[in-house]
Amino acid sequence: MKQIEVSRATMGRIPTYLKYLKATNHYTENISATALAKKLGLGEVQVRKDLAAVSGAGRPKTGYKISELITALDKFLEYDEKSKVVIVGAGKLGRALLDYGGFKDYGLDIMAAFDINVRDAEYSNSGKPIYSMDLFDSFCKSNNVKIGVIAVPAESAQEVCDRCVKNGVRAIWCFAPCTLCVPPEIPVQYENMGLSLAYLNKKI
Amino acid sequence: MKQIEVSRATMGRIPTYLKYLKATNHYTENISATALAKKLGLGEVQVRKDLAAVSGAGRPKTGYKISELITALDKFLEYDEKSKVVIVGAGKLGRALLDYGGFKDYGLDIMAAFDINVRDAEYSNSGKPIYSMDLFDSFCKSNNVKIGVIAVPAESAQEVCDRCVKNGVRAIWCFAPCTLCVPPEIPVQYENMGLSLAYLNKKI
Repeated sequence: MKQIEVSRATMGRIPTYLKYLKATNHYTENISATALAKKLGLGEVQVRKDLAAVSGAGRPKTGYKISELITALDKFLEYDEKSKVVIVGAGKLGRALLDYGGFKDYGLDIMAAFDINVRDAEYSNSGKPIYSMDLFDSFCKSNNVKIGVIAVPAESAQEVCDRCVKNGVRAIWCFAPCTLCVPPEIPVQYENMGLSLAYLNKKI
Repeated sequence: MKQIEVSRATMGRIPTYLKYLKATNHYTENISATALAKKLGLGEVQVRKDLAAVSGAGRPKTGYKISELITALDKFLEYDEKSKVVIVGAGKLGRALLDYGGFKDYGLDIMAAFDINVRDAEYSNSGKPIYSMDLFDSFCKSNNVKIGVIAVPAESAQEVCDRCVKNGVRAIWCFAPCTLCVPPEIPVQYENMGLSLAYLNKKI
């Protein structure tokens, strides 16, 4: 199973499959890609390809056993071993991300935010903690944090990034408009809101 | 000039070129793609391709006239005719987008946000207005708003989208986790934060 080569479009549909399958309550039964496609209003070829990429091919005639398919999709999203994420910077964007409900569909656990201007722990609307940066190093190490989200101004981003890497963070999601220097084994994904909107503007 | 076929990567570099060129203060002079690449630490082939896509080819030996290159890049980003944008939904995300500084580099004018829970006009940290939804229709029409940003919960997104389209908005940028029905001539760009982070997680 080559997980990393699964396309972003396929990954985007996996929570839809999982939600439907978990709602069926017939875990012992089988389902074919054709039936699943019909139920969800998706193309049959697309569903077949998605499932094959993540779970392997279904059996001829019978399709997939629902319980096994759920296990494979859950495993793909690492539900059994949630990916721990922290946010650095608790301004409006950091807080919006902290309370964003859509991460859990992908097995991501946004544990806390950290901010240089926070002294005593605060709590977001959804009850997630926002801690002082003084606690950052020990928190990352003791919780085995995997992903660091950078939501600070561009001028502080490299410093925050370095501190993440030093504390064992293995990937960076950067919202600051800048380019970061990281060791080659650390993937960085930039979220450039200006560019996204400009690209849409060009399609009009 | 086929503007729509310019890649997202090229578009991402245009503000960098513009900032550098506008800072030179030598508008009457020429600059070659080679010189520009060197100054900005970019690949020469990349710069040559970027400029050719947006501004046409430079002249052999002399390169580009700086003033003409600035005009072409500005025109590409539509600085002369700023693209007017409104945000619907002034929760944490809507307010973060309203005050995000990176849009102006791409010639985008975030004019205001609208929210169903706002009665009297409020103002964001950067001084941008947040209006009642009662004012939405007349605002869009009188300002010729081009892009609507949807930052409301998924269950209200279609209603907001319909109202945007009814009032002449020509493209939708959707942050709600949903799929919208729009007339075929209206491009929609979805920003799925959960999916972006999940995709990064798979690269580790």
